[in-house]
Amino acid sequence: MGAVYTRSMQTGNVRAAQKFSADKMVKANLFQTERLYYDVYCLEPGQAQKVHSHAGCDKVYLVLAGRAIVTIGTEERELGPDEAALAPAGVPHGIRNAAPVERLSALVVTTPPPEGKP
Amino acid sequence: MGAVYTRSMQTGNVRAAQKFSADKMVKANLFQTERLYYDVYCLEPGQAQKVHSHAGCDKVYLVLAGRAIVTIGTEERELGPDEAALAPAGVPHGIRNAAPVERLSALVVTTPPPEGKP
Repeated sequence: MGAVYTRSMQTGNVRAAQKFSADKMVKANLFQTERLYYDVYCLEPGQAQKVHSHAGCDKVYLVLAGRAIVTIGTEERELGPDEAALAPAGVPHGIRNAAPVERLSALVVTTPPPEGKP
Repeated sequence: MGAVYTRSMQTGNVRAAQKFSADKMVKANLFQTERLYYDVYCLEPGQAQKVHSHAGCDKVYLVLAGRAIVTIGTEERELGPDEAALAPAGVPHGIRNAAPVERLSALVVTTPPPEGKP
């Protein structure tokens, strides 16, 4: 008892955490627990997270900067800054940056972490 | 099968969702599932979420606008826009707006929802 109280507060900055790579989309992790991943996805123009699904976890995308094409189920929608979309468990989902120049960053919460991952 | 695929995409805007009340802090919910709450907490100057804890769920605060005093365990820290803090399960936590004039809004993810709530 008490150990967790003396551990320093875990904090992060969703802008400062951003990292981009010419190779592929970067997932910059801020927090990871047994209950959630709290990541910033960073996509150069043309980069994408391919559409996939997880049986038992929900995901929420929130655009921080740029424009996202978000796919959930059979629906595709363009989202801008401050707009969020829910991908319920079991529903195929993905995000891509279709912009010609502008980078895309999105806060992505996944809960719980997909099976087989820590 | 398939029903969930034909349901329209659930989206929300973390700025447009904000509502403030002179009476007390407002929790504006964007998404709610059996796995998470995805809320924007809206605090007028002087308003606070009192320090409390949940045994089995994690919470992450992310400041959208204004300045927050976040308490986690025995530690208190001031966070500004784009700064996030993790409140691990079982650790007392709270947020307050100590600013004299400026409103505070924060994206708050709670996973899973506290027991006894939907």
